[in-house]
Amino acid sequence: MIKTNLTFLGFEKEILDFDKSILKDLENKLIDKKGLGSDFLGWINWPNDYDKEEYSKMKQIASRLRKDIDVLLVVGIGGSYLGTRAADNMIRGLLPNDKVQLIYVGNTISSSYIKQVLDYVENKEFAIVNASKSGTTTEPGISFRVFQKKLIEKKGKEIAKKRIVAVTDKSKGALKKLSLNEGYETFVIPDDIGGRFSVFTPVGLFPLMVAGVDTDLLMKGSQKAFKDLKDINNEAYKYAVARYLLNTKYDYKTEVLVSYEMQMQMYTEWWKQLFGESEGKDNKGLLPSSCIFSTDLHSLGQFIQDGTKNVLFETIIDVKKPSYDLNVPKDDEDLDGLNYLTSKSFHEINQTALKGVIEAHVNTGQVPNIILEFDKMDAEMFGYSIYWFMRSCAISGYLLDINPFDQPGVEVYKKNMFKLLKKPGF
Amino acid sequence: MIKTNLTFLGFEKEILDFDKSILKDLENKLIDKKGLGSDFLGWINWPNDYDKEEYSKMKQIASRLRKDIDVLLVVGIGGSYLGTRAADNMIRGLLPNDKVQLIYVGNTISSSYIKQVLDYVENKEFAIVNASKSGTTTEPGISFRVFQKKLIEKKGKEIAKKRIVAVTDKSKGALKKLSLNEGYETFVIPDDIGGRFSVFTPVGLFPLMVAGVDTDLLMKGSQKAFKDLKDINNEAYKYAVARYLLNTKYDYKTEVLVSYEMQMQMYTEWWKQLFGESEGKDNKGLLPSSCIFSTDLHSLGQFIQDGTKNVLFETIIDVKKPSYDLNVPKDDEDLDGLNYLTSKSFHEINQTALKGVIEAHVNTGQVPNIILEFDKMDAEMFGYSIYWFMRSCAISGYLLDINPFDQPGVEVYKKNMFKLLKKPGF
Repeated sequence: MIKTNLTFLGFEKEILDFDKSILKDLENKLIDKKGLGSDFLGWINWPNDYDKEEYSKMKQIASRLRKDIDVLLVVGIGGSYLGTRAADNMIRGLLPNDKVQLIYVGNTISSSYIKQVLDYVENKEFAIVNASKSGTTTEPGISFRVFQKKLIEKKGKEIAKKRIVAVTDKSKGALKKLSLNEGYETFVIPDDIGGRFSVFTPVGLFPLMVAGVDTDLLMKGSQKAFKDLKDINNEAYKYAVARYLLNTKYDYKTEVLVSYEMQMQMYTEWWKQLFGESEGKDNKGLLPSSCIFSTDLHSLGQFIQDGTKNVLFETIIDVKKPSYDLNVPKDDEDLDGLNYLTSKSFHEINQTALKGVIEAHVNTGQVPNIILEFDKMDAEMFGYSIYWFMRSCAISGYLLDINPFDQPGVEVYKKNMFKLLKKPGF
Repeated sequence: MIKTNLTFLGFEKEILDFDKSILKDLENKLIDKKGLGSDFLGWINWPNDYDKEEYSKMKQIASRLRKDIDVLLVVGIGGSYLGTRAADNMIRGLLPNDKVQLIYVGNTISSSYIKQVLDYVENKEFAIVNASKSGTTTEPGISFRVFQKKLIEKKGKEIAKKRIVAVTDKSKGALKKLSLNEGYETFVIPDDIGGRFSVFTPVGLFPLMVAGVDTDLLMKGSQKAFKDLKDINNEAYKYAVARYLLNTKYDYKTEVLVSYEMQMQMYTEWWKQLFGESEGKDNKGLLPSSCIFSTDLHSLGQFIQDGTKNVLFETIIDVKKPSYDLNVPKDDEDLDGLNYLTSKSFHEINQTALKGVIEAHVNTGQVPNIILEFDKMDAEMFGYSIYWFMRSCAISGYLLDINPFDQPGVEVYKKNMFKLLKKPGF
């Protein structure tokens, strides 16, 4: 469950009083597929409607792969890797001791990085999952060529065939055709689900299964969110209204998503894509940014506290239950004067820091805060919160009167690049 | 060398025409220690004035440690780890195959993260460097207790003594006293150098030596920058003026530092602290943000291209020479249509993406761009650019008429937290 807490805003009443009939209208548009971008609403009923047969097959292939490999190379850019990486980090942590390790390639053209990954997998058993609707996108396309070649060189064509999996269009496109030719296993990216809404499809689920994440629990979380959002007075829409008013009525330009857990950093990156790419169009939208506290209190904290005003507001992910907890050891000398903390656990201190910072930023710094209480950091909470944010984002986009499901601006750089690279046809 | 390129701004002339006598006055204040925060200017002459004897001793201890350990735990928060991590990633990459691995603790109160690190070092040989002026800061303080205890439990007091190094005040404070009591080696944080300006002191240099970074080359880079900045018409001041005018005259709120190299991500985090903490005060300053392209073009690219205007400008780090390069493999079938790229290297394609994006963002998206050309990504370039940014930041802060060397806003959350934690005296 997520609880949206606006206690410190100063204009909570206005948000709570927001006309529910407007939200109901927008929700009807969404559910009845009458709004903008209605060709891309497959994600809405997906928590219940996903292909169970394909799901079982994915599990089977993933379980076979897990036995053979140390590393899974995830080839994909934007929505084809951010959700996977967010889940992997949030659920398994940043330094998982168990295999399989996921490494992300295909999201950069940096030769320095690609070379580092090539060296890294030199003496490891690895497999590749390539998530791409078309198979022709430049970044993942050229990376896939490099690592496919490496795998074949190392293990031979027959073994490589069993270690390469494509997540792609059900029938057409270059990657589908290549997979048919080479005998690679394929799973489907549905036609009506865009990249940043695709975590619950094979794009996210298959690599997470290989990583050993409990995807049953993850899907259960998404189903629970689906149910909880049936009431129009839900927390996700309250969040959408709060940020809408802060943006359009009070003229804030930037939303900073804050977590006090290191392993939530990639989650904030997933969130940045979700909201930035959905809303940043027609000269509208909030610039999404993120911080991990308390480390960034010793970096951006000064600006948030005392810098230019009315630029940003903060949305705090307040994780109530940590994955682990531990106590501060006692020291007989107590030279550092920290023995007063030995009766408390790290998590209790972290939660106290959170409270102290909210007070400092809201009351002293005049920075509005929205607090999102997360129960925990497991697969269920991941599934729940991801679906929660997606629904919130869809309504938020409709409030702004834009199409939350396209991304026309991403094409501009590609066209320029293709022209400069002399791509045939450009 | 860094070249500051403003070709795409549309108001380059105004920046180039900025009154040099203003800059000269501000520089005199800085050099003659007559400006705000003049107690913290030890970093200015440091590239030449650093303690050579201490430097040699650090090298000797680092070289001894390198033989015995796989992992160095770097305990520190803010300026006590960001520069080290920025250097380690930029110079050695994100997946270095050679030891020693650096892991950063003491910058979080997350029990989940601390537990992961405890598990991770369970079967590894590790040492600890604790960088803290006082030794009483909460985050590094409680982490140090945990890992000191772990090391003593694993290896016994005698070996632990040789594996714990403190970087702290030269004579006073809890960490200095503890180190004297326990027999830990210590190196000095100079009194007149603040955290975010401390990379060239033992705070940054000692862990980097243990990591195997060529610190001689790094210092050489800082000395070269020191020389190059003697001319008032230097590139670092041009950058300071450009961002000053964009902020105060054209009302941009956010500066996004962009790199096309994954291994520069922590460098952008170091930069965020430098400028955010130096300038974000008295209701002034730019909100520092960062992106790694091309991956974030598939996340924040849409907002930058088509979202709310006049919010942000971009500063692009354009690395001319990669650490490695490689070619796109040819494919006989060419189903993905990418064979047209096989005559080019990854770096050539990455550089072309950079050009295409600048054109898209500036000309189509109306987003001002400042381009900073970096020659390469080695230790020399790190040292050069870090010193370059520090000098730029100092002048930039004086242009805003604030004290760039304090951080009073960081204390507010601490006081609240201490009160809530019932710390004696609060």
